[in-house]
Amino acid sequence: METIKIGLYGFGVVGQGIYHVIGKAKNAHAEIVKICVKNLDKPRDIEVPEGLLTDNVDEILNNDDIDLIVEVINDADAAYEIVRRALEKGIPVVSGSKAMVAAHLPELIRLQRENNVALLYDASSCGSIPVIRNLEEYYDNDLLLEVKGILNGSSNYILSRVFDHGEDYNDALRRAQELGFAEADPSFDIKGFDSLFKLVIITVHALGVYVKPEDVFTYGISTLKDFDIRYAREKGVKIKLVAQVVKVDENHFTLFVMPEFIAPSKYIYSVDDEYNGVVIRGECYDRQFMFGKGAGSLPTASSILSDVMARLHDYRYEYKKMGYLDLPEYTTDIMLKVYLRYSDPKVFESLKFDKINETYSSEESRYIIGEIRISELIRNREVLEDPDLFLCNIPRFFLDLD
Amino acid sequence: METIKIGLYGFGVVGQGIYHVIGKAKNAHAEIVKICVKNLDKPRDIEVPEGLLTDNVDEILNNDDIDLIVEVINDADAAYEIVRRALEKGIPVVSGSKAMVAAHLPELIRLQRENNVALLYDASSCGSIPVIRNLEEYYDNDLLLEVKGILNGSSNYILSRVFDHGEDYNDALRRAQELGFAEADPSFDIKGFDSLFKLVIITVHALGVYVKPEDVFTYGISTLKDFDIRYAREKGVKIKLVAQVVKVDENHFTLFVMPEFIAPSKYIYSVDDEYNGVVIRGECYDRQFMFGKGAGSLPTASSILSDVMARLHDYRYEYKKMGYLDLPEYTTDIMLKVYLRYSDPKVFESLKFDKINETYSSEESRYIIGEIRISELIRNREVLEDPDLFLCNIPRFFLDLD
Repeated sequence: METIKIGLYGFGVVGQGIYHVIGKAKNAHAEIVKICVKNLDKPRDIEVPEGLLTDNVDEILNNDDIDLIVEVINDADAAYEIVRRALEKGIPVVSGSKAMVAAHLPELIRLQRENNVALLYDASSCGSIPVIRNLEEYYDNDLLLEVKGILNGSSNYILSRVFDHGEDYNDALRRAQELGFAEADPSFDIKGFDSLFKLVIITVHALGVYVKPEDVFTYGISTLKDFDIRYAREKGVKIKLVAQVVKVDENHFTLFVMPEFIAPSKYIYSVDDEYNGVVIRGECYDRQFMFGKGAGSLPTASSILSDVMARLHDYRYEYKKMGYLDLPEYTTDIMLKVYLRYSDPKVFESLKFDKINETYSSEESRYIIGEIRISELIRNREVLEDPDLFLCNIPRFFLDLD
Repeated sequence: METIKIGLYGFGVVGQGIYHVIGKAKNAHAEIVKICVKNLDKPRDIEVPEGLLTDNVDEILNNDDIDLIVEVINDADAAYEIVRRALEKGIPVVSGSKAMVAAHLPELIRLQRENNVALLYDASSCGSIPVIRNLEEYYDNDLLLEVKGILNGSSNYILSRVFDHGEDYNDALRRAQELGFAEADPSFDIKGFDSLFKLVIITVHALGVYVKPEDVFTYGISTLKDFDIRYAREKGVKIKLVAQVVKVDENHFTLFVMPEFIAPSKYIYSVDDEYNGVVIRGECYDRQFMFGKGAGSLPTASSILSDVMARLHDYRYEYKKMGYLDLPEYTTDIMLKVYLRYSDPKVFESLKFDKINETYSSEESRYIIGEIRISELIRNREVLEDPDLFLCNIPRFFLDLD
């Protein structure tokens, strides 16, 4: 068997993990022959042979000996340029850049088809859990009803520290960054965008439909306060940042990212620390739960290794579901039941609830429990940017299922 | 896209589930054109079109219009005959018969290669959880260290009823059969053979090595008594029937099926009722946990549907790991720490423990906690058949990991 020659873009936490993991895997028949970095002089924990590093992007793209490009850089625009050029040249790519993949997926699918070349990105969603591959290959039928889970390891780590260990929010965030779980820009994690990008990718492989990230309601945990934590504790639930795509009827689905109150009976209740957990629900098999490390250098690197080995056997995503006759349509005309903690009552001048179930007011804080459509939440994104406001989903109706 | 024409062998609980599930899946492009049953006159819950049923085995095997055979019959010898003949004729097969697959796997691999034809059997291990496919495709590298889990839904259902609901053992067994979880011959489930066959199949796809079922130590839950349940409760643990294959060092692995005391901190502690749960442990990704319905008509049928759809895209197992250069060797020279409840002290005349840690004796019962090699347990299989004896693994050493 021939050895697969890899050109690696990015040598940060994940890139160094890949270098370590590929060195360990004797039967992988893979070798990193060139690593492209932004800054050659940056001090690194890991020593590599003379001449392996370069800061010239073209040195990999123009090297005809390279069979596969692995791209794990933080800058989504730069990543897109590299991946686009590689695919146009017919070089297969394994990517870990969820923001880039989520933003450009239709284009990336077209490029794969036109140039008869593969782009794999299992590592981009849920680190070491093989969600994309299983949705593409194993749950490739009409029975699929819902994919719901904790897709972001660092926000989950922070919630876990705050919730289960009584730590301060900012201390927990700093620790997550020190441990290498949180992205350089933490808002990516805690504002829900990382989960969103993963959810957009999952939706393509789950239901065969691409929804633009900007069309999806996304709300994070950056405004969580002690009051909300105490409220959740009193109700015997935890707050988790949950991403979900759900078939709401035969012809429609919805998706969104929001904090959610999770009861102890639910599978994802016990997904703590940097772990990810995904529930796949279908018509005949009911619920399947997958659980594993979703952040960190080596778990992500081992997922990249799985994609590299898949290329040894010419594996590619077929995007089969996109060819189905009756694809469901995305709708935001879906009622949610939410908890809204606020300080400025003016928020209700534009935010229209269909029903208010509970109102609470004290010297310290006030909240309401009410029913509101996702479309209404999207229309009021700016209002909901208020730092003295926290919104949390209360699972109910079709959502109260796992 | 062409419709795949299926000949189905077996129309019991699982067969009828397949008929139902394939009817539901519009995009599956699959149609059952003939069903072979043992007894045409047996009353059935489900009505099928005139002429679909036959009791003539050859009517499917000799039908050139049939693209795929799905085999879900109970009789392992009859199943083997059908599968062997189909593969020799170049007809691909999807099988749910774990006993048959586990017993004949080397021969079945040879037949697939010689006749360039596929045999898929994901449904045979863990019902709806895609364990085989993931071990084959996603964990196809050297990082894999252990696969450990609850692989038998009916024994787990029984333990769950007995343990969590205080039901009588025989009542629980009868209920499992009524619900369609337990096989016609319950000893298959409760003596651990069903778990064993699945473990043998998993080992081939996990480590690339086939171990004959008769060479694996297998002990079930048929002799479990109230005393053992009380003992476990006092220690704050549950008893589960666990199958595991573990790399014990760089060049060796072991595998066995045994009841085990499971602490609340372990993932499989909360796998209750008819569910299956599998922990996959690797060097860089640590632990992954997969959880889902492992028994019952529709979960198994939906897994069969996944295999049928994989055939639409010409998927086959490559048995890649069997070609690795340094395959680990099976060893039984591994020390376990066990709980042994017994009544006849003569059991110790042949059973040699390396160390006795605790002894207990009362009017009601007696037990020891001690260290013993797996090879010694295998040598004493007959002694351990004693109905007044119960053996349970106490995870320790390398085993105390998930």
